[in-house]
Amino acid sequence: MIADFTYQTPTKLIFGKGVIEDLPEVMASFGKTILMTYGGGSIKKIGLYDKVKTLLKDFTIVELADIEPNPKYDPSVITGAKLCKEKGVDVILAVGGGSVLDCSKAISVCAKYDGEGWDLISGKVQAKDALPIVDILTLAATGSEFDSGCVISYTAISDKRAYGDPLLYPAVSFLDPTYTFSVSPWQTACGTADAINHVLEQFFSSPTSLFNDGIMISALRSLMTNVKIALKDPKDYAARSELMYVCSWGCNGILANGAGYSGWPMHSIEHALSAYFDITHGAGLAIITPRWMREILSEKTVERFVTLGTSLFGFPKDLPAFDMAQKVIDAFYSFFEETGIPMHLAAVGVKAEKIGEMADHILACDDTSASWVYVPLDKAALVRILEASM
Amino acid sequence: MIADFTYQTPTKLIFGKGVIEDLPEVMASFGKTILMTYGGGSIKKIGLYDKVKTLLKDFTIVELADIEPNPKYDPSVITGAKLCKEKGVDVILAVGGGSVLDCSKAISVCAKYDGEGWDLISGKVQAKDALPIVDILTLAATGSEFDSGCVISYTAISDKRAYGDPLLYPAVSFLDPTYTFSVSPWQTACGTADAINHVLEQFFSSPTSLFNDGIMISALRSLMTNVKIALKDPKDYAARSELMYVCSWGCNGILANGAGYSGWPMHSIEHALSAYFDITHGAGLAIITPRWMREILSEKTVERFVTLGTSLFGFPKDLPAFDMAQKVIDAFYSFFEETGIPMHLAAVGVKAEKIGEMADHILACDDTSASWVYVPLDKAALVRILEASM
Repeated sequence: MIADFTYQTPTKLIFGKGVIEDLPEVMASFGKTILMTYGGGSIKKIGLYDKVKTLLKDFTIVELADIEPNPKYDPSVITGAKLCKEKGVDVILAVGGGSVLDCSKAISVCAKYDGEGWDLISGKVQAKDALPIVDILTLAATGSEFDSGCVISYTAISDKRAYGDPLLYPAVSFLDPTYTFSVSPWQTACGTADAINHVLEQFFSSPTSLFNDGIMISALRSLMTNVKIALKDPKDYAARSELMYVCSWGCNGILANGAGYSGWPMHSIEHALSAYFDITHGAGLAIITPRWMREILSEKTVERFVTLGTSLFGFPKDLPAFDMAQKVIDAFYSFFEETGIPMHLAAVGVKAEKIGEMADHILACDDTSASWVYVPLDKAALVRILEASM
Repeated sequence: MIADFTYQTPTKLIFGKGVIEDLPEVMASFGKTILMTYGGGSIKKIGLYDKVKTLLKDFTIVELADIEPNPKYDPSVITGAKLCKEKGVDVILAVGGGSVLDCSKAISVCAKYDGEGWDLISGKVQAKDALPIVDILTLAATGSEFDSGCVISYTAISDKRAYGDPLLYPAVSFLDPTYTFSVSPWQTACGTADAINHVLEQFFSSPTSLFNDGIMISALRSLMTNVKIALKDPKDYAARSELMYVCSWGCNGILANGAGYSGWPMHSIEHALSAYFDITHGAGLAIITPRWMREILSEKTVERFVTLGTSLFGFPKDLPAFDMAQKVIDAFYSFFEETGIPMHLAAVGVKAEKIGEMADHILACDDTSASWVYVPLDKAALVRILEASM
């Protein structure tokens, strides 16, 4: 059954090798003054920075560099918004991965707001306007290029927020898979793990439909098959193109249109891990995934595992349901391990003594114990998942 | 591999039982004066006409009724555009199926154009502006509610055109599956056949990707499973909701993003059948489908059939490829027959003596023999398909 939903994604995707040749025409439709945002300089290494500057030689470009992996309100968002106001920026051009995009989204609303920008991001005040965003994606992972959300940290007040508003949809996303050829094996594995987790968060929900289930299993199959090819041959265009496209479907709702909202509990847990230990988001998710699955396995949920077992992994249909579920959990564990992710939180720097505190933090940020979460998780459950993940 | 593509669908889908309660708020965002378009009166039988009038009692409503099944430029589009200009219409509200929607799309651009509207529809002049369209869908079939195309006939000059422009995307589509409970078995079968054909036109293309293949097979599985349930129990909400949602994906490109354009040859053939004998579009497509498949089966195409055989129908993987293909073709034939569609053109009123003329007509309208068509079809091939379909 398709449950009630509202869906709208106005972003234009322009996909393929060499598509940024269209950049000048696209940018011109928004104005002459551009805030160009990027991260630590990988776009310079691959020649993309120079390419963009050459293509946009007739525009006024204001730059905001060094955007952090978990992007920060202070300094990046504040500085970017200030630049937009001072320089009369017409449009933001984000060149990078999900962090650069998320930061740019936050800047786009703060640039059009006279008060304290954090009031928008923290949901105290609703944004009324935003600068348009165009992006050139260099990492397949978060899906930020096709959704209206961002995650921003405010270190000074130990806060990290997922912020969403239809104003944040990028106007145009340029997706050229060749820009991901140089992504490291670690980032390739973690980006894919992030996307796989986006699918699973939405797959474990209710009600279900034949159509949505099939789409999600197809997304998982594509991600799990193509990441192995890309890890072996980083310049395999076919594999990189599927990874880039499938990842873009992660978070705008289309994968689960008509399913109930699941609460995205694995993301709630991982956000705490990243906030406490600044670990790589995708790695945290990969490590948590099989432990969360084991925690929620029950008579209510076992059908989801059976569907994954038969449709995704091709396990024999006559396996007893709970045996099938165990095999599915083991298969995800092995898969992530094979992509190079150490499957223990201790190995990525998480300290066991913080587990209780993190569990409290999770419940304070997102109420994973709420009845509308697919399987509600109270403090004891969160502690079990985190301990099993160590 | 994901081939190059550009994709954008700005339409907002509002899906679920009772969603039209939001209609006044949505319409108010576009203005006060509405052109309400509908067809032969089925919306009165199911109480939807009265419901809409009651909900919109504070608006000025201009009505255009009796829109034809294959909507006509003259009188419907001309009359609608004239009404919009005379009455200062702000927004069109289409209440019905694909024909009412298609007609409304044509009206939306003609209402904003001072010259001869057919010049827009026939592609002689590019439209610059359009009235916004909101729709309430009552038939799961064409996908017009989520795409930017329409098909319009101009009887006086024996012309029928598929016309597309990004201006034609509906702004908001209300999808309430309960409005399809009263759709007849014949229309249910033909609407589903139309949607199945939309998927197949895009499935038979090159290159292919794991992700797109999986989505399309999921769409086919959902359509083929749920139509049988809906035919048995027309008020089965779960089945009707899947049919309505999957059908909406038919024609905006998302099913085949990244595949090469196939040319949609079965639609080219069917448009000629409808133009000559005014048959039901979905029935024509169902009858043509297995014959077209048999015509194009070759070393080049057999892999597509094998994928359908193993993934959709679950045939044994060790079947020889061409045997598998024959079983797939037979399976589609039997499926359409089981839904109540007579699988011969003669049974729906097509006369064999027109086959040669229709083949010429097809080639004149759409060059199905062009090299970019997935399998180019010359006159002899078209005649073979039509003769086999009789």
